[in-house]
Amino acid sequence: MSEKCDFGLIGLAVMGENLALNVESRGYSVAVYNRTTEKTDEFIAGRAAGKKFVGCHTLEDLVKSLKTPRKVMMLVKAGPAVDSLIDQLIPLMDKGDIIIDGGNTLYSDTERRTKYVEEKGLLYSGTGVSGGEEGALKGPSLMPGGSEAAWPELKGIFQSIAAKVGPNNDIPCCEWVGPRGAGHYVKMVHNGIEYGDMQMICEAYFLLKHCIGLTNEELYDVFAEWNRGELQSYLIEITRDIFSVIDEKTGDFLVDKVLDVAGAKGTGKWMSQLALDLGVPSTLVTTAVYARCLSAAKDARVRASKVLSGPTEGYTGDKKEFIAHVRDALYASKIISYAQGFVQLQAAAAEHDWPLNYGDCALLWRGGCIIRAQFLDRIKEAFDADANLENLLLAPYFTDAIAKAEAGWRNVVATAAKLGIPAPAFAGALAYYDGYRRAELPANLLQAQRDYFGAHTFQRTDMEGTFHAEWLKLRKEPQE
Amino acid sequence: MSEKCDFGLIGLAVMGENLALNVESRGYSVAVYNRTTEKTDEFIAGRAAGKKFVGCHTLEDLVKSLKTPRKVMMLVKAGPAVDSLIDQLIPLMDKGDIIIDGGNTLYSDTERRTKYVEEKGLLYSGTGVSGGEEGALKGPSLMPGGSEAAWPELKGIFQSIAAKVGPNNDIPCCEWVGPRGAGHYVKMVHNGIEYGDMQMICEAYFLLKHCIGLTNEELYDVFAEWNRGELQSYLIEITRDIFSVIDEKTGDFLVDKVLDVAGAKGTGKWMSQLALDLGVPSTLVTTAVYARCLSAAKDARVRASKVLSGPTEGYTGDKKEFIAHVRDALYASKIISYAQGFVQLQAAAAEHDWPLNYGDCALLWRGGCIIRAQFLDRIKEAFDADANLENLLLAPYFTDAIAKAEAGWRNVVATAAKLGIPAPAFAGALAYYDGYRRAELPANLLQAQRDYFGAHTFQRTDMEGTFHAEWLKLRKEPQE
Repeated sequence: MSEKCDFGLIGLAVMGENLALNVESRGYSVAVYNRTTEKTDEFIAGRAAGKKFVGCHTLEDLVKSLKTPRKVMMLVKAGPAVDSLIDQLIPLMDKGDIIIDGGNTLYSDTERRTKYVEEKGLLYSGTGVSGGEEGALKGPSLMPGGSEAAWPELKGIFQSIAAKVGPNNDIPCCEWVGPRGAGHYVKMVHNGIEYGDMQMICEAYFLLKHCIGLTNEELYDVFAEWNRGELQSYLIEITRDIFSVIDEKTGDFLVDKVLDVAGAKGTGKWMSQLALDLGVPSTLVTTAVYARCLSAAKDARVRASKVLSGPTEGYTGDKKEFIAHVRDALYASKIISYAQGFVQLQAAAAEHDWPLNYGDCALLWRGGCIIRAQFLDRIKEAFDADANLENLLLAPYFTDAIAKAEAGWRNVVATAAKLGIPAPAFAGALAYYDGYRRAELPANLLQAQRDYFGAHTFQRTDMEGTFHAEWLKLRKEPQE
Repeated sequence: MSEKCDFGLIGLAVMGENLALNVESRGYSVAVYNRTTEKTDEFIAGRAAGKKFVGCHTLEDLVKSLKTPRKVMMLVKAGPAVDSLIDQLIPLMDKGDIIIDGGNTLYSDTERRTKYVEEKGLLYSGTGVSGGEEGALKGPSLMPGGSEAAWPELKGIFQSIAAKVGPNNDIPCCEWVGPRGAGHYVKMVHNGIEYGDMQMICEAYFLLKHCIGLTNEELYDVFAEWNRGELQSYLIEITRDIFSVIDEKTGDFLVDKVLDVAGAKGTGKWMSQLALDLGVPSTLVTTAVYARCLSAAKDARVRASKVLSGPTEGYTGDKKEFIAHVRDALYASKIISYAQGFVQLQAAAAEHDWPLNYGDCALLWRGGCIIRAQFLDRIKEAFDADANLENLLLAPYFTDAIAKAEAGWRNVVATAAKLGIPAPAFAGALAYYDGYRRAELPANLLQAQRDYFGAHTFQRTDMEGTFHAEWLKLRKEPQE
């Protein structure tokens, strides 16, 4: 092939290969490069055979084989490798060429790199890519951010490879997110919400299994039913599927053979740490991360289980009603989790001066990615109706949804507490709701304590200003 | 005064002045320096008048006025000011002289500074100081870490000024903590535990106020009673006092005039972020930090309170019993919070190779500081009995204490959920307990999900190795 290629891709691990095949399948020619040359040759001789691919053995070759403005996307391990590639690419590329990072990069690295690459006269795009291997091949959710001038050049390719949603299946899950690190931040929040969704599904599973003793077959039916209603989503769907899978080694249900030790790759942790820096209560993602930490302490839990007591009685109420209540708890908690995610996005956007469109964010997650769900249409509608909506819970649809689910949700949290089933996400979501809807919280006492022992001062409800009281002198002398 | 001084102190804000006065009151002569010269002169002419103080107008004067090995303690704002002072002091000081940072410094800064100062031939001590203004003057809790060779030189002064506990009031709340940043890490965990204690007391207050309508007079009596039992502590004592304080401006109870917007200075946030990095579930401190964040969103809460619904009924059970149950919830949650704090300390010690003595840590907090409590004697005893105790909950005293409190605790969490009172710390502590005491958690489903959508692989309960399943191919075809 002597013509120059439309798109360049660096990094031929599974995600990179699949994304390259996706781009090529939409009619674009793709030049590919991998640090290990054999990998490139294998790909060209294998999955890429007979297709519009050019295998390159050096970055020079890759850059030379591209039409201008050149588009080079990196799909490599986040971290120093990205900085190194950028420094190798810059001298090879020309003004207006675009470097894209499609990895799970911490947004602050993308903030820095966008400025750095722009100073060198090139364009940079940190693009969140979600959907795993299958999404990369068939249609991921794409969250591009970075140099605004890159977007018109990328839009055609990116929107063609992205997942499509809508009644006519023609709305791409790919829109421009915002400057610098905005795309990677939105991707991080997506992942954090995914942590919350998975934790909440686990809590529902555990409650149904331990309070009312549902079997895997029954759990399959429950999740199948839930997937036909408001909870319809990819994660509910695959959870349903999981309860049907038989282990080929033993003939038992495979889910019962899987060790209960959850791994994590760090985006949920980042979102939690950044929420703490912003001072916004993203309690659900943090609860989910901590729950994974506790799961990982398997040996310690086994030891503790032999020492620590708990209730022994089971649930005595109606089974069907309890299943409906767990559904309510899951749905209400999910709404809380998404509401918190958007509040964090808003706070980050304010801090970094990103003009985010929150309805678009919901749309980006509508298909292709792990948290894809019909539910996100409701979120998009809420932000379309009020672009400055301060909290999803205040949108009438969600206010009503919570109100309908509230009694069941409260019953599930109370039951979990009474029967000794850990449900930290359901309980934490409820506590957030009950705190958020309170004009008055007990922090008046906390401020009084801080002023008492540390002279930290306080404000008053009835007058302006900053006050300090001599609590010790004003107190009633204790009688003892 | 022509003789050289025993101790040097930089930074004459209230904490610095009080600590200097404390040192002098134990028979030591003290040289003081403040960047603003007038402050030094004022102090010398005022509170220091007639005492063994030397006011210095330059750092050179301060260093020259000290006996060797010199001991210079900085009590200045944490951050760049500390680095700047260190760089000014180094050329003035001699081998074996000691620079001490008594501020609320992030432990990693102290790790770095200890190495830096030691490379220059001097000694460095990052020392946690707790107890607020009053503690600094009358006897703080001191948590010294850093260059081990500094300790024999500091021990006399530090243990003489520290708070004293024990039957004969002669055990100082000051022991060597460990190398480099260990002292500041222990101080940070102290502060994080303080966050948890304060949040839990606020939840108890809110439940007693809103579920059973206790007045401030009744709350005074409840906290007075609690302070005579297992919950005896400085924070319970000052909470009792707060409920007795009448506002001089209005004649009403002052606590009811304090705005419910909690401030924070960052150590709770640090502890949370570091717990997430370590992968240990310090859920209580994080819940407390997030609760402060939510309290700070006062205007948003007032708006939400007009839109979002909640239960309207009150508690119908026995009042006295409910008060006892809230006490149980507070005590059990407090045990969980301390258990988490020590688990985090153990994880940090392992990561940084600090040979911490956990019983000593409990002893340091036994007096002088904000979390001081008789309860800490039980913790010291637990670690004295088993220096490698992996979790406080496994010490018989605490296992029994939780078992006794468990029923009441569960009732309070369930009641809070049913009645719509936010109690995130009580609920989160219970969820941690119920997770920790479970040999099996639902993370098997989570790992199955991760393997389904991302080929993340999983381990099995029944055989060694790492596995991946083709879930999609193995699933039952959905009927819909």
